[in-house]
Amino acid sequence: MAKATGLSGFPEWLPAGRLVEQHILDEARRVFELHGFSSLETRSVEPLEVLLDKGEVDKEVYVVRRLHGDEDAGLALHFDLTVPFARFVVEHSGALAFPFRRYQIQKVWRGERPQEGRFREFTQADIDIVDAGHLAAHHDAEMALVMAEFLGTLPIPPTVILLNNRKVLEGFYRGLGIADSAPVLRAIDKLDKVGRDRVRTLLIDDAGLDAGQADLCLELAAISAEDASFVRRVRDLGVSDPLLEEGLAELAAVIDSVSRRRPGAARVDLHIARGLDYYTGTVYETQVVGFESFGSICSGGRYDALASDGKTTYPGVGISLGVTRLVSLLLGRDLVRASRSVPTAVLVAVVDEESRTESDDVAHALRGRGIPCEVAPAADKFGKQIRYADRRGIPYVWFPEAGNHTVKDIRSGEQVPADALTWSPPAQDLTPQILQGEGT
Amino acid sequence: MAKATGLSGFPEWLPAGRLVEQHILDEARRVFELHGFSSLETRSVEPLEVLLDKGEVDKEVYVVRRLHGDEDAGLALHFDLTVPFARFVVEHSGALAFPFRRYQIQKVWRGERPQEGRFREFTQADIDIVDAGHLAAHHDAEMALVMAEFLGTLPIPPTVILLNNRKVLEGFYRGLGIADSAPVLRAIDKLDKVGRDRVRTLLIDDAGLDAGQADLCLELAAISAEDASFVRRVRDLGVSDPLLEEGLAELAAVIDSVSRRRPGAARVDLHIARGLDYYTGTVYETQVVGFESFGSICSGGRYDALASDGKTTYPGVGISLGVTRLVSLLLGRDLVRASRSVPTAVLVAVVDEESRTESDDVAHALRGRGIPCEVAPAADKFGKQIRYADRRGIPYVWFPEAGNHTVKDIRSGEQVPADALTWSPPAQDLTPQILQGEGT
Repeated sequence: MAKATGLSGFPEWLPAGRLVEQHILDEARRVFELHGFSSLETRSVEPLEVLLDKGEVDKEVYVVRRLHGDEDAGLALHFDLTVPFARFVVEHSGALAFPFRRYQIQKVWRGERPQEGRFREFTQADIDIVDAGHLAAHHDAEMALVMAEFLGTLPIPPTVILLNNRKVLEGFYRGLGIADSAPVLRAIDKLDKVGRDRVRTLLIDDAGLDAGQADLCLELAAISAEDASFVRRVRDLGVSDPLLEEGLAELAAVIDSVSRRRPGAARVDLHIARGLDYYTGTVYETQVVGFESFGSICSGGRYDALASDGKTTYPGVGISLGVTRLVSLLLGRDLVRASRSVPTAVLVAVVDEESRTESDDVAHALRGRGIPCEVAPAADKFGKQIRYADRRGIPYVWFPEAGNHTVKDIRSGEQVPADALTWSPPAQDLTPQILQGEGT
Repeated sequence: MAKATGLSGFPEWLPAGRLVEQHILDEARRVFELHGFSSLETRSVEPLEVLLDKGEVDKEVYVVRRLHGDEDAGLALHFDLTVPFARFVVEHSGALAFPFRRYQIQKVWRGERPQEGRFREFTQADIDIVDAGHLAAHHDAEMALVMAEFLGTLPIPPTVILLNNRKVLEGFYRGLGIADSAPVLRAIDKLDKVGRDRVRTLLIDDAGLDAGQADLCLELAAISAEDASFVRRVRDLGVSDPLLEEGLAELAAVIDSVSRRRPGAARVDLHIARGLDYYTGTVYETQVVGFESFGSICSGGRYDALASDGKTTYPGVGISLGVTRLVSLLLGRDLVRASRSVPTAVLVAVVDEESRTESDDVAHALRGRGIPCEVAPAADKFGKQIRYADRRGIPYVWFPEAGNHTVKDIRSGEQVPADALTWSPPAQDLTPQILQGEGT
């Protein structure tokens, strides 16, 4: 079940772990499509300058080149799915109907130092909505609701989506007389990792704030609420700015909408800043309750200026599930597991090699009715064929003895006469089930 | 529908094309799981020496490195899924039950010159069975049957799997007194591309054959049959060798098994050689009938010595669907298309922004019953909301007017009273259908 240790930061799952990942991806797709998101995949590489333009990621990018020949020089593996999507939208704007809704499930690569929950190759599952010119505000709540609905379908601990708005932070900083908000955002973004005291030092030493400004920034970051009551608490700090007011109104609208449909699914938390430069409004992070230190499993935000072809700007809002991080948590703590590691529900035994065709016929009939099965690889003694099924976690063995077909549940030992044209296993044995593990 | 021309060799599909690809991947997964194959994904990178060890691919490999820092030096993107799978099996042999059956659907990268059907980044869907020590011969027929069953589920032109066996070729060459079969195989592999005359020149000039040897190699390559009758025709060429006999027996067994279950699905064709070095027995290629010049869409073979940990060898057999090549053929010739480009079946109109919540409620109820829907992005006049649905290809628009909900099929114009708790679209409108295109 655990991940391979072959190459640090490049996780691989054994089949039972992969089933957990597949279940998560299947549920994501099902929920995303119910909400009208179209599937999309973009190429894995982008021109290096496209990637470097979009944030502080230059040290994290993997460049690729042909072993012999340099005609592809200047390409690098994408580090997220938002930047490639923005490029795709501009490139194909004439062929898309706006607002355009897409989901995208692909691997991304970052040259980060590998550690718990942090990988160099990992899978993301993103949803985004972009429009041409102007994107309606209600989509910001919609993204959180879609992700909350999806997360609610999984057999995992409760999750909570943390909401903030860049305009609240930047407006507040501006109202405080801080000229450059970037170093302040970077420092605030480190609160979970290094703590309040260290961030205060960073705000004063690196961002150049005075002690009063730093304390107010920290007081703002400490505000958290399950409803729009946060607005009054921000105003009580005595800072005013038009951008701050705009952000407060937007954030209040998002928490109101989300709470009305799914009470408890989200919370306003003003210390959420998000590292990437391109966010301009609402930002999201998501915690698994009880595993907060594991980091956000689902993050994103609104980006009003990421995609533009010079004439038209395509504002967007998106949220990205860190599939590999979530799976590594679920498997690593045994929070979720698969009921078996193979799709196979039935092993069809082989009486002797001469009659293998008859076993193939049984398997063919069962598969025709949607029952996954295998034919035994060798006509060993039945005891050995049963042990083969047991070792693979296959629950049933079919014995195609002439004129007397039977099927045995090898867990209970119960063996009954059976006809391949009519017999079916119980629904919970048809496919592997994804269940809560013993770590819950 | 057509592919992007952004970066040569790195195709991207618009949403309607992606639906065709998804349908192919869904069917592949369904059929593979019915046959007991477990899903697996391996990391995208391997140590360069692992890749270069496995064939004449050094010029095709993409190496990766971090933009800053060289700690990952020596890694490259995989060029197929077989070599990484062999590495995975050796690394995890203790955790796998043999014979181990897996399918793997991932992107691979090759630095080839892009041309029709040939890409630098493309998706493969592979099935393989590996065993420890010895792998039963009947799996060679099984792989072809699984792929033929899968291909038969698609709304595409007929396909035929071409079969050969490396032992037939190498035994025949040995029987002819040819010391080094590698340059002969390479020349024969070019028959489709450069023709018989040019290959004859290659056999004589590059491989050092005399005219008699070259002609017999070409006569062997010209043999094709739908059953085991090819054996006599090979023997009639008057060459004998124990390895040739072994190959003929294996190949006859495979065509017999495949033809019994699926007549016409496969054909023996002794000019199939396969470029990769690691094949040791049965080899497969697959043609789409009427589009033979497009190249093989599904290839593979048996590799008895690819995976070994020094003590145990893990022989395997596998076959790989070239998903991107197939999709590019289907879309490029309009052989297959999606009935619409979005998952959405119903657009719920918005009467005015104040009542958006009521539209959200309708959508929520429909989704709860598995009906994909969207809520209109803006409370425009109904005519404009209908045009929005029409532009996106959404077949139904729901009008949630107080006390008088109706749903309209915007293709026929029929509008009926409806209740979100009971109304459903016809099955063929629920999700996008994948249909034959106008190119058929």
